[in-house]
This record gives sequence, structure tokens and C-alpha cells, in this order.
Amino acid sequence: MSERVGDARLGQYVPAPGVIDLAWGHPDPTLLPVDQLREATHRAMERHGPDILEYGSTAGSPPLINFICARLAETDARAPGPDQVVITSGASQGLDLVATLLLQPGETVLLDLPTYHLAISILSDHPVQLKAVASDADGIVLDDLARVVAQLRRDGELPRLLYTIATFHNPTGRSISLERRQALVNFAAQEGLLIAEDDTYRELSYDGPPPPSLWALDGAGAVVRIGSFAKSVAPGLRLGYVTATPEIASRMANGGLLDSGGGMNHFAATVLAEYAASGDYLRQVERFRDAYRGQRDRLLAGLATHVPDAACSRPGGGFFVWVQLPPGVVADELAPIAIARGMAFLPAHRFYVDGSEAPEAIRLAFSMYPPEVLEDAVVRLAAAVTQLRG
Amino acid sequence: MSERVGDARLGQYVPAPGVIDLAWGHPDPTLLPVDQLREATHRAMERHGPDILEYGSTAGSPPLINFICARLAETDARAPGPDQVVITSGASQGLDLVATLLLQPGETVLLDLPTYHLAISILSDHPVQLKAVASDADGIVLDDLARVVAQLRRDGELPRLLYTIATFHNPTGRSISLERRQALVNFAAQEGLLIAEDDTYRELSYDGPPPPSLWALDGAGAVVRIGSFAKSVAPGLRLGYVTATPEIASRMANGGLLDSGGGMNHFAATVLAEYAASGDYLRQVERFRDAYRGQRDRLLAGLATHVPDAACSRPGGGFFVWVQLPPGVVADELAPIAIARGMAFLPAHRFYVDGSEAPEAIRLAFSMYPPEVLEDAVVRLAAAVTQLRG
Repeated sequence: MSERVGDARLGQYVPAPGVIDLAWGHPDPTLLPVDQLREATHRAMERHGPDILEYGSTAGSPPLINFICARLAETDARAPGPDQVVITSGASQGLDLVATLLLQPGETVLLDLPTYHLAISILSDHPVQLKAVASDADGIVLDDLARVVAQLRRDGELPRLLYTIATFHNPTGRSISLERRQALVNFAAQEGLLIAEDDTYRELSYDGPPPPSLWALDGAGAVVRIGSFAKSVAPGLRLGYVTATPEIASRMANGGLLDSGGGMNHFAATVLAEYAASGDYLRQVERFRDAYRGQRDRLLAGLATHVPDAACSRPGGGFFVWVQLPPGVVADELAPIAIARGMAFLPAHRFYVDGSEAPEAIRLAFSMYPPEVLEDAVVRLAAAVTQLRG
Repeated sequence: MSERVGDARLGQYVPAPGVIDLAWGHPDPTLLPVDQLREATHRAMERHGPDILEYGSTAGSPPLINFICARLAETDARAPGPDQVVITSGASQGLDLVATLLLQPGETVLLDLPTYHLAISILSDHPVQLKAVASDADGIVLDDLARVVAQLRRDGELPRLLYTIATFHNPTGRSISLERRQALVNFAAQEGLLIAEDDTYRELSYDGPPPPSLWALDGAGAVVRIGSFAKSVAPGLRLGYVTATPEIASRMANGGLLDSGGGMNHFAATVLAEYAASGDYLRQVERFRDAYRGQRDRLLAGLATHVPDAACSRPGGGFFVWVQLPPGVVADELAPIAIARGMAFLPAHRFYVDGSEAPEAIRLAFSMYPPEVLEDAVVRLAAAVTQLRG
């Protein structure tokens, strides 16, 4: 009989003893709202009874759809109507569903690089081509997008979708400027290009309200915005949503997967709606923002103090700082030394398609640890840099 | 501001007033284990704390994987090891993941018809060809499978996967004979054909243990068995699993979707594991079997009494009876008359690809109503038949 996995950890992240691991964009577990979600589950089951365990409405549990519409009216520049929203099993599953339903084999997906590496993985599991577009400190470079699209067309290719993270970017932390956002959606509309806007970090805004989403600025139905509750509530619930035109929302809600299974995650979605209705959602988001803001600030201060000749992004939200290492310090050479000294990071090249770019940059996640531990991690990083250079 | 969907029903199934609706393979809501799942959620959150809300292990929550391995040792002829199991968001999502990860554009999926109509929908959302194979009262006809495969190859096509429901079939209720099962898996192995075995109804066995799965009989790694907790516990939880070779399981667990989101439905899966560990799962399955057995028996007795010249399948499990209507009675003509008299069904042609087959047959689901209501539905059906014929 094969061995049990009973002693295996529940979680995806397996800590290495003695290593402060800044490679993972996972929440600090001590911040997760265990008690409130337990109570919300109790109330939701009392309120709905067997309806919470049935096959759910295919577009998603109506109270959660209502909450999403109301919440986006507060956090974004435009709110969707309920017919423009579909509940997903997280942003990952939202992107996977977009790829299955909205892309044909052989079409090209554009990505401004660097980008979320696991979005590259999700898209790579579909029979599409991937094409890189340049980015700078303010996000995707529109001239390069236009150039790439034109070149693809000349080559007889079919550029169909741009995947981009416009706000509190993973891995760089930057946000596309307002002017560039509007120009981007205008370009997409005029070119018949869809945009899958990964808006996972909208709620984690530390210095004031987040910028308007591409979806909010788009009057032409070009943008499918992929939202998430992983970072604003908890990743293990597996809940997110899509806002899109009624036509695209309907295509998703009426596709085989949702028609067969009902709403993607009916039970959890209905629990989350109950949690949100209690006011706990707003309190939790504030709690996360306060904690993560402090963590961001301490990480940045630590870097400025201990690795002063690194150049670091200053994210207005999200989980990540992008660090250009001091000249001559190569991330792949630094990594084993850093681990030996008790900290870990992801090298920047992981966020490109072919792995050879940005050899002297790294991504640091500040989400998982309190400020003092983050400073400790930076001290270890600095020692590793010194060791490598010396 | 667009209207709220707040008054919309939570569920996918929207009852029509006065209509006994035998079109839906949904559970009787009064049987759903609301209290036990609420208590299991409480215990699971007490036991695991924040770990239940983190990104989960990608193959799925380990205690649920362990339960699946142990349970299949009891209900099937072979048990998987933990490295052969991946947790999905229901059987629907399991099939969708198989289609995304194991099929290339243009490959052909074979289906013995009639089959689960929404599996046709799920597969149709992927860039594959669908090809019908004949079936009879004992399931897929192997001579026709061999013929179709040979013809496809002569035509330069790539038959890659057979989708089939071997046990307590939807829509016909039949199960493939033991001899034919073994011959089928042998054929698949020798032809390099994968089989996606939809094993959704294994637990709902009313006349003794269910037959061994194709997966259990397969020594060559040809079968990917798709399991479900929708019918044995509750559909709204959105939980199922796949048993396959370690290579296929690993491909799924390490694909972009699961790598990005962690386990498909970590929170719900961990709750379900707690529920199962308490013994509630076994008690609930027995409860369902007793109720559904009685419902099946009353429906069949009612059909024998009130529509004696219909020919009905006698399912050993599952949710469905396949009814060959009396000669000359066309399902599409019968349907509006039946609805006017207060009952509904799905016409058999819905379970084929092109919709023109089996015009004089229907599928009846006995899952949603107690026995006396099912008999009432049959009386109404009989009256509709009489009206149509007269």
C-alpha cells in the first residue's frame, strides 16, 4: 500500500528551516481571517440551508456578484452590472477560462515582460503563441506594442489578446500611468485586440486609492478584467471574478464547464458573500493594507540602508519589490549564497519567457513576514552580496 | 445603476411552478448534509487554522487525497496511491483539465452515444474533433470502436481519447459488462488510446457493490478516471478528483493552473476531508442510496403501471432511467404537452452530438423528488402520452 501523505503539509509553500523566503507572494498566515470565515460559514449555512450545497447559478452566487458590483463602485472608476460579472475559482482559473473560451489555436498572446511567471505557465498550457512586448518603469511600452502587432500581422500571425497587470504589478510593483492606460485601451479597441487585465492586487493599495482599471477606462468592450479574492481575503478559498462585456460574461457562464458544474465555487462564494455582508471584508482589507504597508516600508528602508547601490522599485501596492542588483552581481550566482545565509528570492529572469533576461535583478516578496523579519532578510541578502563581490 | 441580482435564486435549477421537473440530475435538497458540513467546517478550521486558507498543495489537500485512496480501496477493485490522485473542482473541471492538458488541437475525442450532454459541451469548448461510437444495452460497442479508430487513422486523423461513463451511465443508467470493460481497456492500451472514465456515480450503487472501474482493470496507464463528490456529498462544494498514472497526475498538478492557484479548491477540500474523517461521509452515502433506491424503484414501478408499453432501462445506480416511448410517440411533440400537464423531461436526442437521433426516447431523473411525487410525475407523463396519441 502506498504511503500516506497524511503528514504532508496542507499548503503549497513548504518552508525550508532557517530560510527567510522572499520568493513567495503568499500572505502572512497570521493575518488570515480564520475566525471570521468560520463564523461567516455558519451564518451562510443557517441563512441558505441546502441552497448553499446545490449546483449554483452558473455565473456565480448572486450575493457575491452583487458585492463585487458594489465594491468596484468604491474601488474603481466604473462599476459593472451583474450581467458583466462571472465568479471564478481565483484569478488563475479566470485566466485559464479566458484562454480556453476566447482564444483559438495558433493565435498570439502578447505579454509585456517581465510578467507574472505562472500566467506564462497557464497560457503555455494552451495552444497559443506567446510574444513579448517591452516595458519600462511605467509599464508596457505602447510604441513597442504597436510595432509587435504590426509585425505579427505582416507575418500572417493573429495577435488576439494582451495579458497585462496594470496595477501593482507582479513582479515589478509598478502601475501603468493614467495617460498610458487610456492610450492602451484606445489602441486595443482600434486594433480589435482583447486585453486580459490581471487586477489581482487592486485592494492592496498602500498610498491612497488605486488607479482606475483598464476595464473602467475601456468603452469598447476590449478589456476582460480578472479579479481575485486571494490577496484581499484568502488564497485557499479559491475565489475570483471576471468583469467583461455581457457577451463575454455570457460566453463564460454558458460554456460547458460552468453549465455542467454550476457556479465555479458555489459554496465558498456564498460563504464569502456572507463574510462581505458583515463588514468583515472591509475591516480585513484595512488590516492587510496596514500590515503590508509597514512591511513594504521596512523592506525598502532595509534595502536603502544595507544594499544602497541596488536600485529598487517603490510599489504603491501589491506584494513585490523589483531590485536591480549592484553592477556585476548576477542573481543566479547570488541565490545559493543567499540561501546558505538564510534568505531566498526569485531571480528576475523567471519572469520572462526565455529566461535569459535581466540576469542582475531579483524579485522580493514582502507579504509573508513581519517588518523585523524582512529587515533581517535584507541584512542576510546584503551579506550575500558582499560575499559574492568580495 | 444596473439592477441587483439579489433576489435571484442561489441555484442553477430554477423550478417552474407546478411542474415536476425530471429533466435535472440534481439531488433532493432535503437530503443534503447542511448541518454536518457546517460542523465539519468548524472542526476543520479549528484543527488547521490559517493553513486551511493558504495556497494549498497543488495536487490537493493531503487529508482528502488520503481519504480518496482509502475509500477507493473499499468501493473499487484497486486503490490509487497518493501520487496518482489530483483533486479537482468537480468532475466537470476534471474533464476540462484533461482536455486542456492531454489533448492537442485537431485530435479526435471518441464518445459512445448517447452520453452526458454537458460533457459534449465541455469537450466542444476545446479545439478537438468529436466522433461518435455506437453503444447498446451493455454500453460501448467494441467492434464499432475498433472500426471508428481504424477509419480515423486511414483518414489521417488522430484518435487520442475516449470519453465514456462506464458505471451507472448518464443518460441510460446502464453499466458496461465486466467482460466488455476488460476488453475495452485492453483495446485502449494496445491502440495507445487514452480513456477518460467518468466515474461520477460510483457511490450511488443500489443493488450491491459497483463494478470495478476501467481504471482498476487497466494495467497500462490508459485510463484517467474522473471522480466526483457532487452526488455522494453535495454539488455546491465543487469537489472531485482524478486517478491516473503518476506521470499524468504530475502533469496536472504541475500545470500552470494548479501551480498558480495551488490546489483547485483547498478550503472546501480540507472541510470535506474533516467531514469524511468523522464517518459522516459513509452515513450520508448510505442515506442517499436508501433514498435514491426507493425513488428509482417507485419511478420504475410507476412507469410499468402507467406507461406499460414504454421500454425502460433498469439502472443499478445513478440518477437516470432511459425510456423508449411507445411507438409513434415523439419526444419533442410530447414535451410541451407534458409540461402543460405539469411534468418535464429531457428528450433523448439531447444526449447525442447532432440532435437527430432517438426521437422517441427520453431521460428521466429520479434524484430530486420523493417517491410519491415521482409517481405523480409518471401519471402526468402517461396522461400526456395518451393525449398525444389520442
